[in-house]
Amino acid sequence: MHTILRSEKKEIVIGIDKPFVIIGEKINPTGMKKLGQALVDGNMEYVIQLAQRQVAWGADVLDVNIGHPQLDEVSVMPVVVDAVKAAVDVPLCIDSNDPKILEAGLRNAPGKPLVNSVNGEEKQLASVLPLVKERGAAVIGLTIGEEGIPATAEERLAVAGHIIERAAKMGIPAEDIIIDPLVMTVGHNSKAATITLMAIELIRKEFGVNMSLGASNVSFGLPDRHSVNSAFLALAIQAGVTCSITDPIKLGSSIRAIDLLLGRDANSMRYLKYFRTTEKLREQEASAKA
Amino acid sequence: MHTILRSEKKEIVIGIDKPFVIIGEKINPTGMKKLGQALVDGNMEYVIQLAQRQVAWGADVLDVNIGHPQLDEVSVMPVVVDAVKAAVDVPLCIDSNDPKILEAGLRNAPGKPLVNSVNGEEKQLASVLPLVKERGAAVIGLTIGEEGIPATAEERLAVAGHIIERAAKMGIPAEDIIIDPLVMTVGHNSKAATITLMAIELIRKEFGVNMSLGASNVSFGLPDRHSVNSAFLALAIQAGVTCSITDPIKLGSSIRAIDLLLGRDANSMRYLKYFRTTEKLREQEASAKA
Repeated sequence: MHTILRSEKKEIVIGIDKPFVIIGEKINPTGMKKLGQALVDGNMEYVIQLAQRQVAWGADVLDVNIGHPQLDEVSVMPVVVDAVKAAVDVPLCIDSNDPKILEAGLRNAPGKPLVNSVNGEEKQLASVLPLVKERGAAVIGLTIGEEGIPATAEERLAVAGHIIERAAKMGIPAEDIIIDPLVMTVGHNSKAATITLMAIELIRKEFGVNMSLGASNVSFGLPDRHSVNSAFLALAIQAGVTCSITDPIKLGSSIRAIDLLLGRDANSMRYLKYFRTTEKLREQEASAKA
Repeated sequence: MHTILRSEKKEIVIGIDKPFVIIGEKINPTGMKKLGQALVDGNMEYVIQLAQRQVAWGADVLDVNIGHPQLDEVSVMPVVVDAVKAAVDVPLCIDSNDPKILEAGLRNAPGKPLVNSVNGEEKQLASVLPLVKERGAAVIGLTIGEEGIPATAEERLAVAGHIIERAAKMGIPAEDIIIDPLVMTVGHNSKAATITLMAIELIRKEFGVNMSLGASNVSFGLPDRHSVNSAFLALAIQAGVTCSITDPIKLGSSIRAIDLLLGRDANSMRYLKYFRTTEKLREQEASAKA
């Protein structure tokens, strides 16, 4: 099954037979004071820089989240979307819990955007899915039910099924749903990762939809998070995850290596190109700093 | 199925339900001039240092290979084995292509050693398996047949079966056979890793034996080999590999992270302990260098 996203001129295809799709996570002021301040000041330069840098490092899609207590997000979201789409030609993923903010972003987003996110709660389904349908967008569906994140893989499968079914009733096809089976930190529960891997396998077998993961939750609270995150991505991609909202600068090389190992990169073309490109970027960024 | 190795006092259990076993690879003069020279000089200090350092960094077993054109390996192997076993209390893996050298090492190795290796060629089976049986050792069986390394997973399964069968006829049980399904570099053949992963799954299903991999072959000729090696280890361990002859200093943290993710490390105890120990070692080694 293929999920297609589009910018003005570019089409990105997400699917198990395609290279893994990286959705750049860095346009998000949570825990990033400098970006929060730039947004409050209405200064789009830093946003543009974050957009360009992520695309240079291999992001295929950019997530745009502007959640900040001092912002009127409904009026700022379209400004940020316009700035990003003028700077880079990649599809956008409009990210908010609030349907009004999603709507404001979707209106200005180019081509066919992604919505981040809906979940299995009735209130969310009823408010977000109509926006997705109307805009002809795709949507990330988190496997959260009325009682929160289910403890078992089977319950997450059930929530995924519920989201897909509700979307189908509104005329949104399964290929426009990307399920996020969610992962908790393995530091608190040593079964956290295996439950998620099991959920991925069940959802792939039952529905065959694309899946996304915010892979860095898995290592929350642990030292040397990179070793945990990169190993988890390998396991999750092997199991069936096809895209991730993540940091292309930290995890791009692992992701290209996993594609290569899974036979999705003939003659190592993408892997080698990524290495050459990022090696240059690393040098440029180091000398810019010095 | 559990493979048990022993030193004087320590028992190491290899199995799918156990933490992954690291067989330290560094006592091997191939491409390591300093060690080659030390062995030629009969200077065991550097060997002892390599042994202690690998165990400090988490090696559960040590491979001992002394292949060098200037050495009489039959007479030197027991000297090296004696030096290593006096310095560290871990099981040893005696590594040579020559049955006479294996025999010389096995005689002095403590407890229950591992033999590296036999393969599916009749000549090798006939000369190595009797040594394994007589010594009560375990053995690594490479899936190489009379015509070299088979191109397909099914053929590697067949070679594994042949080794296990020939061993059984001599009274060596399947739990004392560790199959190495072999991996070629993915830089030359983009299906190299998927063939090996398929072979691992087939061998696990058919025979349930323990498996080992020299995981770093997979990245030969590629840049940023660490990203490829660590991702491949995650995929291979998930598929059923239970030990590896590898560098604990480079890959120890990835291996501990994979165990943690696969639910084989309750309360992250091993992961956290490994991080604390190696953080100290890193500091000590850095200050010793300065």
